[in-house]
Amino acid sequence: MNAAILCVGTELVTGAVRDSNASFLIEKLLRKGIFPKWISFIPDEVKEIAAIVRFLRDQGVDILFVIGGLGPTTDDLTREGIAEALERPLRFSEEAWEGIRRFYLRIRGVEPPENNKKQAFFPEGASFIPNEVGTAPAFILDGPPKIFVLPGVPREVEFFWHRLEREIPNVPGNIYRSTTLKFCGIGESLLEERMRPFLQELPKSLRFSFLPNYGEVWFFLYGQNVSSEEITRGEEILENVKKSLASYLFSQYGETLEEAIGKLLCERGLRIAIAESCTGGLVGSRITDIPGSSQYFDRGYIVYSNRAKIMDLGVPEGILSRFGAVSEETARYLAERVRHKAEVDIGLGITGIAGPGGGSLEKPVGLVYVGVSDGSKTVTKRFQFGGDRLMNKRFFAQAALTTLFVFLKER
Amino acid sequence: MNAAILCVGTELVTGAVRDSNASFLIEKLLRKGIFPKWISFIPDEVKEIAAIVRFLRDQGVDILFVIGGLGPTTDDLTREGIAEALERPLRFSEEAWEGIRRFYLRIRGVEPPENNKKQAFFPEGASFIPNEVGTAPAFILDGPPKIFVLPGVPREVEFFWHRLEREIPNVPGNIYRSTTLKFCGIGESLLEERMRPFLQELPKSLRFSFLPNYGEVWFFLYGQNVSSEEITRGEEILENVKKSLASYLFSQYGETLEEAIGKLLCERGLRIAIAESCTGGLVGSRITDIPGSSQYFDRGYIVYSNRAKIMDLGVPEGILSRFGAVSEETARYLAERVRHKAEVDIGLGITGIAGPGGGSLEKPVGLVYVGVSDGSKTVTKRFQFGGDRLMNKRFFAQAALTTLFVFLKER
Repeated sequence: MNAAILCVGTELVTGAVRDSNASFLIEKLLRKGIFPKWISFIPDEVKEIAAIVRFLRDQGVDILFVIGGLGPTTDDLTREGIAEALERPLRFSEEAWEGIRRFYLRIRGVEPPENNKKQAFFPEGASFIPNEVGTAPAFILDGPPKIFVLPGVPREVEFFWHRLEREIPNVPGNIYRSTTLKFCGIGESLLEERMRPFLQELPKSLRFSFLPNYGEVWFFLYGQNVSSEEITRGEEILENVKKSLASYLFSQYGETLEEAIGKLLCERGLRIAIAESCTGGLVGSRITDIPGSSQYFDRGYIVYSNRAKIMDLGVPEGILSRFGAVSEETARYLAERVRHKAEVDIGLGITGIAGPGGGSLEKPVGLVYVGVSDGSKTVTKRFQFGGDRLMNKRFFAQAALTTLFVFLKER
Repeated sequence: MNAAILCVGTELVTGAVRDSNASFLIEKLLRKGIFPKWISFIPDEVKEIAAIVRFLRDQGVDILFVIGGLGPTTDDLTREGIAEALERPLRFSEEAWEGIRRFYLRIRGVEPPENNKKQAFFPEGASFIPNEVGTAPAFILDGPPKIFVLPGVPREVEFFWHRLEREIPNVPGNIYRSTTLKFCGIGESLLEERMRPFLQELPKSLRFSFLPNYGEVWFFLYGQNVSSEEITRGEEILENVKKSLASYLFSQYGETLEEAIGKLLCERGLRIAIAESCTGGLVGSRITDIPGSSQYFDRGYIVYSNRAKIMDLGVPEGILSRFGAVSEETARYLAERVRHKAEVDIGLGITGIAGPGGGSLEKPVGLVYVGVSDGSKTVTKRFQFGGDRLMNKRFFAQAALTTLFVFLKER
């Protein structure tokens, strides 16, 4: 079973926006065993949309996702393009319009403008699905190919995927892709070196991929027309990899690092507070991305200025002037003081230089210190990264969470 | 003049590798004034390659780039696909083979394996270009469409682009794209309604695009075959749009909202501190994404638990129990208290329910209150969003920054 993904938007083919919807759908389709054979990006133009929809139909595609171009403005032309391809007129749905109105009233508190009415038009024979996270309903046309037309806002694509998932069949055996193992605290090339003895035993039909991802390394196996014996052998090898590298493995089923940390804290009934400087709130934001994090996350201090470090956490001026705000001593102090002040079990402190300014020969941009304390023990780590400001912030947050994860795991 | 980019590789459609070649070529083509209308990714399969090459030819594409699938292994099938599409046999080139041998000997010190011979086969009538940074030569077929076939290693794509650049015409005026205007505090459809009188005056050749982006709306003009008079007219209309919607416009040259806020704070010599609950540090992180933000950002409190709200900012327990942690009163208190405690000019407070838990009929998930205070005046705003947890966090942060921006602009 094959699928095609067609992303519509002039912003995509002029490079104004980088697509994430196709990547999202590829991943989801592969997990169902469906091969996304055709992935295309085209501008908001009726003729082009119609032409490629007809082409994909003629290629015998089973499932076609068309993403984007369902907005209320006149430059959004996906519904017109599909109507032309299938030679079906657009029909207004009172029911869809009611749904749009209700959503608009609930969110904005006013009636939607007249141009939103556009979003209640669908090609004849389509069934629509109300949107609970935006205005544009999705719609489905029976095939072949079965066509799913979704708005292009990534969160809305996710929302509709969860709605539509059960309408899309599972086709095991067509294409194989293992779950993704995620590692932290170890580099890509060292990881591969440690894995080599296992990888050499992989059946020929199985290939592997290492993806470095801001201090994490992701790993998976994949292949087409892989026999069940070969899959079994591959999974056995994966199990051995997991055992051998357990101390760096934080995720086997796609969880994020902050999710893995949340699970550890919950299981052990621990509460945490953090003090971050250079990351400006990013570590707190990642920790609180997890539903239910209020169970273990008490508070954070973004002690950006030295005044804040002194006033809020009582870091002694002597420490700051002798060792500097970016130092092992300050990281240790932040971790221990924030733990004590918030009256929690674990304290995490981060201080570094994200750049572009503020660096020196001795303390260059990209330097960060992380401290973790549980009251009886404090661990500090020093990392040096080489990115721009935003990259460094991401690396710093990752380093802080990695240090915390390893601390909790070893505790 | 239009172009198409066709990237061939099973690793691309299975998400194992993220493409960078298409992005590279899009940018280069746009600079020449060529519109990359069709961008497609397909697996290494002869039938599919042939079908889409024929489709693109039939669409009247002027230039076609085919990238990838020129390797020595049996899974590389691009040359076969193109030969089939154009119904031309593959012919072996002694000269190309000599080039491959010399490269291989120079880099590896040994004769190339027999399977590299594959790389010296080209469809009849093609001219090849030797590769100085890898083994696979590129080849060109005269059109229409003119077809450039390049190996898929990004470094090799760059190498061949520099070789081929002069064979690709410059078409000034063929495609036009204005700078992007970014608005906040106004929805997409209302914005279009307000812009309509201006947009109606646009020359027929100019089109526009609205892109909603987490509470921001981005807008730009673009068009093909636009005369310089039409561009001048378009830019005049853009100027009028800017004037008429100045209070919502925060960016004319691509700046982010946090950059625009930073500029306002710097210009006015104001310092800020923030108190965030539901966003968990996201607002602080966005503010500190800007280099030099230490000039105006003093500190933040992530008062996630009620204990933290009481202990760190002295929010009275009575306020929390009477009005709730998520209330106008709490937002006001957070903004005023954080301003006072940090001894700064501006205080920003955010409290809301990101979900999925914690909502009620009266206070549903997605509800957020924002407060901004400058000591003499405090403004509070209520917003209701309808996303999942991560989406709500992003919306909340956006709402907080929008409220802050409008407050500063009106001050």
